[in-house]
Amino acid sequence: MFFFLPEIQLFIYAKTPTMKQERCEPVMKNTILVPDVQNLLAKKNYKQIGAFCTSVHPHDAADILVPLAHSDIISIFETLDELRKAEIFSHFDEDLQKALVQYLSTNDLAALISAMSHDDRVDFVKKMPRNLKTKMMRMMAQAEREDIIKLSAHPEGTAGAVMTSEYVTLPAKITVEQAIRRLRREAPNKETIYYSYVVDKDRKLLGFVSLRDLITAESREKIENIMHPDVAFARLNDDQEVAARKIQKYDLIALPVIDDREALVGIITHDDALDIITQEQTEDLEKLMAITGSHETRAYMKTSSWGHFKNRAIWVIALAGMELFSGMIIHSYEAVFSRLLILALYMPMLADTGGNVGSQSATVIIRAMALKEIEATFSDFFKVIFKEIRISLFLSMTLAVLTWGKVLFLTSQNDIPPGFSLMSISLCIALVMAIQVVTATLIGALLPLMAVKLKQDPALVASPALATIVDITGLLIYFSTAKILLGL
Amino acid sequence: MFFFLPEIQLFIYAKTPTMKQERCEPVMKNTILVPDVQNLLAKKNYKQIGAFCTSVHPHDAADILVPLAHSDIISIFETLDELRKAEIFSHFDEDLQKALVQYLSTNDLAALISAMSHDDRVDFVKKMPRNLKTKMMRMMAQAEREDIIKLSAHPEGTAGAVMTSEYVTLPAKITVEQAIRRLRREAPNKETIYYSYVVDKDRKLLGFVSLRDLITAESREKIENIMHPDVAFARLNDDQEVAARKIQKYDLIALPVIDDREALVGIITHDDALDIITQEQTEDLEKLMAITGSHETRAYMKTSSWGHFKNRAIWVIALAGMELFSGMIIHSYEAVFSRLLILALYMPMLADTGGNVGSQSATVIIRAMALKEIEATFSDFFKVIFKEIRISLFLSMTLAVLTWGKVLFLTSQNDIPPGFSLMSISLCIALVMAIQVVTATLIGALLPLMAVKLKQDPALVASPALATIVDITGLLIYFSTAKILLGL
Repeated sequence: MFFFLPEIQLFIYAKTPTMKQERCEPVMKNTILVPDVQNLLAKKNYKQIGAFCTSVHPHDAADILVPLAHSDIISIFETLDELRKAEIFSHFDEDLQKALVQYLSTNDLAALISAMSHDDRVDFVKKMPRNLKTKMMRMMAQAEREDIIKLSAHPEGTAGAVMTSEYVTLPAKITVEQAIRRLRREAPNKETIYYSYVVDKDRKLLGFVSLRDLITAESREKIENIMHPDVAFARLNDDQEVAARKIQKYDLIALPVIDDREALVGIITHDDALDIITQEQTEDLEKLMAITGSHETRAYMKTSSWGHFKNRAIWVIALAGMELFSGMIIHSYEAVFSRLLILALYMPMLADTGGNVGSQSATVIIRAMALKEIEATFSDFFKVIFKEIRISLFLSMTLAVLTWGKVLFLTSQNDIPPGFSLMSISLCIALVMAIQVVTATLIGALLPLMAVKLKQDPALVASPALATIVDITGLLIYFSTAKILLGL
Repeated sequence: MFFFLPEIQLFIYAKTPTMKQERCEPVMKNTILVPDVQNLLAKKNYKQIGAFCTSVHPHDAADILVPLAHSDIISIFETLDELRKAEIFSHFDEDLQKALVQYLSTNDLAALISAMSHDDRVDFVKKMPRNLKTKMMRMMAQAEREDIIKLSAHPEGTAGAVMTSEYVTLPAKITVEQAIRRLRREAPNKETIYYSYVVDKDRKLLGFVSLRDLITAESREKIENIMHPDVAFARLNDDQEVAARKIQKYDLIALPVIDDREALVGIITHDDALDIITQEQTEDLEKLMAITGSHETRAYMKTSSWGHFKNRAIWVIALAGMELFSGMIIHSYEAVFSRLLILALYMPMLADTGGNVGSQSATVIIRAMALKEIEATFSDFFKVIFKEIRISLFLSMTLAVLTWGKVLFLTSQNDIPPGFSLMSISLCIALVMAIQVVTATLIGALLPLMAVKLKQDPALVASPALATIVDITGLLIYFSTAKILLGL
């Protein structure tokens, strides 16, 4: 039997047992020696694994259990108390949760759900199949059932869908001492006790006090005298990212959520804000690369190949449709190409470079808008155009010179049909490159701004869609410039 | 004089006074009426603006002051207490901070710096010009000077560079009651009092207790009996993102940072984690679009056009260099094109589609690696290949059919030189498309994995670089397939 150190390591151990020697950096300081899980399993010593799972962070405990057989997980679960069981279970992914549910009696399941935190519980119940959901709901106490129904009523992606109902409220008239006594009593059942919200009899939000305020205040002081009346909050239907950004802006531990009647209905905590921002980040990135669909973390391996295909196909097919236009333009200039083949050879380079510089400006603008640095106002509109014109002129001069050199390097006068000079053709291609770079940069910067103005998602017009659009503008620039300069 | 509601609104008001009527949604609940700042400025009533700035969150106060004249900001600052002044000042951007410093006496500046939080203070001092830095350092107390020197010693992007030294430590042997008394005393000077770290006489980290633990424990209980000995931590030189992801994984309010001798040297707080993840997100996105350079938020307008140009140019020029290869390949097949021009017309479509599907798979893989879902191990390597092969076969069949239809739609037999049939050419182009999609998808998935294996940044091989690479493979596939099928 051998021992090694927790977390990353354990995780690796479970996945690829032969690699454990390489990854020995402890990520926990006061190293608890981790038992050899496989060895203990062989001896059916579930109790010792359970004891270890109780001694570490539930996230680490989940990492240890995930690779085990479902029946083993259940046997280990039987040695745990309800709260720890619920915490570990919340860290499992949807598939594993669904699989484990099959092993539990309805009673056990109801006990597990009761012990889960209110927001995790709702996420879990939402994902269960309908018949199981009905069965579970029937087992629960009236109050819990109502809480679940209330929390699950909000559409995905809103503040209401990520909030929890485990927060502390205080009346304005009690003293600091009474408030601390109340917090002490309620602490085990609340997601955070560091912020308490002061409400009136209609649950209207009047202010908040932090635990820091409470422990530094005089014990006989009234809450209404020390509370902060000026509370940042989110509304139920606000986008979850708006709520997360508010937590970020004001460095909050929790943000209260209010309904239409201004009554407090939940809180979103700082750790939810981190998860929301990570999730939005993945979706934004994928939208930029023309991948549709939203998903949770840890989704790549779990999502089926067919699912991945569907996420990627929609845009790829739409783009193929758009390319029909560029195809038609190219075909209509077939006669030009047959007279001067060299022009056809530089089409891919012009298209690629346009796509690259357009994606660059689109990325910077989309990001600046996401961080609220730029808004879709006319004033910002013109500032952006002015700035991007200057940037693109620098880029355009650089690339025109490089292109001119490239054409001269790759082509000799012998390749050119009589009546045309290599110099005029190379200068023509360089000029087209210069115009294409300025146009593509500006299109890349303006399309996302226009999308926001039209209340569309700016990321939808990025990268691949943009590449196809600047292909078309590039071709039009190419042929009209060649027509004028070379007299085709 | 008119009144309107705080935050967003105020912000808008200050930027574009005519728009204030449109944006009246209050984002603060208990609305404090905001005075008309311009009106008060005209009357030189700095005191009332100062009083308002004290009544709102420092971030909002900063938003109100930013658009004002520097001399007005200083006059308003004179009405504020040191702590509030420091909090608001920390929310200004670098340029404004530098400008305001010119108006302050060395004494005022030293007082301002003393009142700033330790991590903000270091960021500020680091950015100041050398001569001013020396002058400021001379004005400060010995302890503060040492703290700044110590904190500023760590390279940008490490845990050491974002940590603060304002945390609470407790000896293991004191009681809960003594600990709470100590917290109450130290609260005003600490970034958080919700986590306290238990250390021995060499500052070695033994465990932590949360304020929740303390207020729910028996007051005579010893700290060593209630502390959690199992603490997640970061090392000084860990990447800041690693530290932020640990805060996310374990839902922490703060993460301790230790040095080589395992002594506690600082903490990183939950709000820093949000800022780190937002900053890393911007940089990742820009790397994907071939934009170099790291920067802070609110950088688009502040960065000069020449600066933006430099960030974008390096990759654009490198790509132009790479395109020289594809240019050479294309030129070497000039004879083929002059026999069968139609092949040249489909080069852009094949290149674009390859770039799109390659970027899609690269994005998903890079993201899955960033979230530690996939690692650069051989086992994951093969899982990814297997999955991407299946996904790309679906995509490839779809696009082959579309391409075949497109060629038949755009071309008539008349366009084809004698000796070739439209059917064989269209089938050849469709087949090339099918092979190109599979190849590009696999290259997109494998390059980031290989980059990580070679300890390079995976995002460097994404989108534009990838587009250029799959251009080259696409051309090689195109010409060899055409050679075999059409006998060119």
